[in-house]
Amino acid sequence: MALSGLQKIRSKYIPQLPPALQGSRVHLLRGDPTTAADPSDALAISRTFPHTYGQPLVQLLRDETNGQSLAKLRVGLVFCGRQSPGGHNIISGLYDALKSHNPDSTLLGFVGGTEGLFAQQTLEITEAELAPYRNQGGYDLLGRTKDQIRSVQQVNDARAACETLKLDGLVLVGGCTSNADAAQLAETFAASGCQTKVIGVPVTLNGDLKNQFVETDVGFDTVCKVNSQLISNICTDALSAEKYYYFIRLMGRKASHVALECALQSQPNMVILGEEVSTSKMTLFEVTKQICDAVQARAEKDKYHGVVLLPEGLIESIPEVYALLEEIHGLMRQGVHVEKIPSQLSPWASALFEFLPPFIRGQFLLEKESDDSAQLSQIETEKLLVQLVETEMNRRTKAGTYTGKKFNAICHFFGYQARGSLPSNFDCDYAYALGQICYHLVGAGLNGYMATVTNLKQDVSAWRCGAAPLTAMMTVKRWLRGPGVSHIGKPDVHFAKVDLNGKPHQTLAQNASSWLMDDLYRNPGPIQYSGPGANLKTVTLSLQDQDYIGRIQELWAYLEKVKKMVQPGCPEEVLKAALSSMNSVIEVLSVISTPAFRGATPY
Amino acid sequence: MALSGLQKIRSKYIPQLPPALQGSRVHLLRGDPTTAADPSDALAISRTFPHTYGQPLVQLLRDETNGQSLAKLRVGLVFCGRQSPGGHNIISGLYDALKSHNPDSTLLGFVGGTEGLFAQQTLEITEAELAPYRNQGGYDLLGRTKDQIRSVQQVNDARAACETLKLDGLVLVGGCTSNADAAQLAETFAASGCQTKVIGVPVTLNGDLKNQFVETDVGFDTVCKVNSQLISNICTDALSAEKYYYFIRLMGRKASHVALECALQSQPNMVILGEEVSTSKMTLFEVTKQICDAVQARAEKDKYHGVVLLPEGLIESIPEVYALLEEIHGLMRQGVHVEKIPSQLSPWASALFEFLPPFIRGQFLLEKESDDSAQLSQIETEKLLVQLVETEMNRRTKAGTYTGKKFNAICHFFGYQARGSLPSNFDCDYAYALGQICYHLVGAGLNGYMATVTNLKQDVSAWRCGAAPLTAMMTVKRWLRGPGVSHIGKPDVHFAKVDLNGKPHQTLAQNASSWLMDDLYRNPGPIQYSGPGANLKTVTLSLQDQDYIGRIQELWAYLEKVKKMVQPGCPEEVLKAALSSMNSVIEVLSVISTPAFRGATPY
Repeated sequence: MALSGLQKIRSKYIPQLPPALQGSRVHLLRGDPTTAADPSDALAISRTFPHTYGQPLVQLLRDETNGQSLAKLRVGLVFCGRQSPGGHNIISGLYDALKSHNPDSTLLGFVGGTEGLFAQQTLEITEAELAPYRNQGGYDLLGRTKDQIRSVQQVNDARAACETLKLDGLVLVGGCTSNADAAQLAETFAASGCQTKVIGVPVTLNGDLKNQFVETDVGFDTVCKVNSQLISNICTDALSAEKYYYFIRLMGRKASHVALECALQSQPNMVILGEEVSTSKMTLFEVTKQICDAVQARAEKDKYHGVVLLPEGLIESIPEVYALLEEIHGLMRQGVHVEKIPSQLSPWASALFEFLPPFIRGQFLLEKESDDSAQLSQIETEKLLVQLVETEMNRRTKAGTYTGKKFNAICHFFGYQARGSLPSNFDCDYAYALGQICYHLVGAGLNGYMATVTNLKQDVSAWRCGAAPLTAMMTVKRWLRGPGVSHIGKPDVHFAKVDLNGKPHQTLAQNASSWLMDDLYRNPGPIQYSGPGANLKTVTLSLQDQDYIGRIQELWAYLEKVKKMVQPGCPEEVLKAALSSMNSVIEVLSVISTPAFRGATPY
Repeated sequence: MALSGLQKIRSKYIPQLPPALQGSRVHLLRGDPTTAADPSDALAISRTFPHTYGQPLVQLLRDETNGQSLAKLRVGLVFCGRQSPGGHNIISGLYDALKSHNPDSTLLGFVGGTEGLFAQQTLEITEAELAPYRNQGGYDLLGRTKDQIRSVQQVNDARAACETLKLDGLVLVGGCTSNADAAQLAETFAASGCQTKVIGVPVTLNGDLKNQFVETDVGFDTVCKVNSQLISNICTDALSAEKYYYFIRLMGRKASHVALECALQSQPNMVILGEEVSTSKMTLFEVTKQICDAVQARAEKDKYHGVVLLPEGLIESIPEVYALLEEIHGLMRQGVHVEKIPSQLSPWASALFEFLPPFIRGQFLLEKESDDSAQLSQIETEKLLVQLVETEMNRRTKAGTYTGKKFNAICHFFGYQARGSLPSNFDCDYAYALGQICYHLVGAGLNGYMATVTNLKQDVSAWRCGAAPLTAMMTVKRWLRGPGVSHIGKPDVHFAKVDLNGKPHQTLAQNASSWLMDDLYRNPGPIQYSGPGANLKTVTLSLQDQDYIGRIQELWAYLEKVKKMVQPGCPEEVLKAALSSMNSVIEVLSVISTPAFRGATPY
């Protein structure tokens, strides 16, 4: 690595600290026990996590008590998920907190992700090692490989590493899947008497680890800003040349947060969110028709250029395509050889498969990812749609229903070029604070928690630090396995989809027709580190409802669910779970009613 | 258009002015007559441009004389070439100069490029129209369509527009091709008594309009910075995941300046410049072998990731591919239908064509661009090379000569996402100064000139403003049309290739082996507009030799050429051209010997 001028300047940036972390000590305030995100999942989750379920929410408060240095700690850290800008600042936050509270404490980074954890390959973090990586992008100080800690062997290897290395804490940095692994590891450790405390950190550029405790994820801010810069550049290009439609596929697998945020920042002509398609059960033909109608409407205004965004997860949101992919993956699981899969598909799946262009067929047959999802980054949905739109526009031309010029499109996939970016000030500050919180959680002996910072849309001086049990963020997937046979999956940290009724999506919906027709392109420009605009937040975060009314409406909906569970003659266990859920509501209400929550007195 | 926060801030940015433009007036200093860039072309060029050949170089000097406002001028402006960041600032510089010297002067923008010129579609520029486009990217205030002003009809239409609209000046904004058109138009106007003065401006993100008068082009700085940011992000990604090779194709058609500059900024593992390939006459197989050897050398160090850059023009630099494309285009010119071309190729061309993967064959058969070059942006050279490298690595594996892991690659094309960027401070300042110079050239009645700013690698306070005749930048292409039959093309503004002996390329060559093996990736980060690093120049510009010794060496080489032309008994005309060339050297020497050139007294 060779640092550029800007990288050198950035390596010396000192992240801003929220009030709770500005003192010499931190006071941990524990609330009442928590329950599951969805009360109907509480029972299943409490059974899977008997040792770590129901732990209380934790708030961090500033404490000015001076005293001797605190106990010496040994903490390990693993980059589990895909690299997100800001990841290195989790390390620097944790390192600085460890060393400032006791210079003899040790931070071990596992080299090469979970593989390094299993093999006990560590790098002891020192200031000299860390200095050039402060506020830099990528995960290259430690690297990462596979993402999973799932199998019995993997869990045992992880425990062996923690025990051999005498770790007081293990910090897992990643998204939903990695944090579900963290929850499992915490439970296993607690059950088997392993002393290492497991802490998760919400780091995923997809921004889909979002719940009542987590407002956004490290990396989402930067990735959306870099992508929006590029999308806007392409909008400018489209408007200058006036001859191409650009179809841009963005990262975003199970949810379309990146596509939504980028659309809000750059205001392209169209964005098709996976959530819209799956909610209204649009077929591939209907998606194509929607784009064709837009192209036709613009042609009537003599416009033959435009920009269309789509998330990589879009392809799985189309019901018939999803079903086809499920069939393919089912056959893969049965060990059917890739070449033989097409001949073993059901008649309707086979018909759809044969209808698709050859390049897409090949991409559908790729092996699944390590987290069991389709290799969405390799499926060129944008090219598929362009081809289908082209065919349909030609058909309309022949039929005489379209009389405009030929439709010309250029495809893009924006993924890797944003992921390795230098992180924004926001991601630097957020990740650094989370890293410091990890130290305090390990120091307090908390296990199975996620470090959290809330009130993020305000200035750092109003940010609140805390932690929430991982089990409180989990949901259980249920699906039909044939008529009347339902299947309950294992609990997972909830993947948040885009809320179609939330303010961010409503803003998009309200502007859709003017953005479609009027080319109201907006260029946020490159990320700035100083001067005006250096501390801008994502639009999603700014619009997200974190106020009283929003929270109270959530609680109300939650209680409605609890009420439904409690029926005369329902089993004792269900009743217990319902009561615990009510306790959790009371806990949240007590937090909301503090002046601190209202921001009356910043702490 | 809707301006973002940063766009609003940028729209209020006031470009820095070089000393010559800071006064209330400008004094034009004319030198001795000029000749052609290559003395052996002087004759051909002087014959093609009898009215505009041999005009003197012009320097702009600051003049503090106050007086009444100057004559009212009417000037038209056309965006001719592909959009480059900074284009809008040519308009704002010209507009501000026109209005400040006489508020009754008029600037007409032609809407939709040269098509708008032919059709006399104009937009009168007003402050209200212009304000939101100041310092913004794209060409969308006016748009652009086709690039050419070549045919008799087009030239006549252009003249009709200038005469009908009573233009004192016409400013053409573009690269080599557009400036050659400007030269032709200037000559035609001069010959036919049309009063409109034609001025060219060097604006092309390819950076290949470069000669002794022009150090760099508007747009090159921004485009290289945005591309380098993205390349570096991908380097970081490669190093974090350690499993992929990224093959990134960059814009750059006849020359590889963008690829060279981006390599210098981001220090990837490998860059293959078209100039290197064509100079050493590397075949497709040899290029493939070079990459494979690099992959193998890295695998021996247990490295299975990397980043390889290539310019879009690379494909035409490979001799046998160039010959194949020439054959295809020859058949196209003869009117052979695309589908029949493969069967009419010569045996060897046909063999190569059939060897290529089907997707590349299709791309080779695309129609040529309006400037008569292959549609390089549509030819996926990066995919071709990845496929060839994959095949070769598999062969080596089978042969047992390669025992490393499988080679995995991901392809990117970075073009459109950089081209529409907000321009850097450098491009804003440079373009604005050029725009202002255009005003002074038209005001002085100069015709067939290009506005120039030199000493650009220094601070703006040391920039020198001037103008050079377009004919002095022209060269004549000669090629063989069968054994012994040589053909002389029409004069064109010289496309500068990367100088393999220049400091920028030497720097690359000196570092090639360590960059290949040691992953010395460097991330220049996003363009900054304030704070440290907001005024960084390209590495190419900083390394370019603009000092005495460099210039004197150039003059020496030039005089050597002149000497060769002058033989006993050579025709009178050749002798005249040689004498004129010597005059031009004397002129340059006189400029070099002024204290102003040495920067002793900034003016």
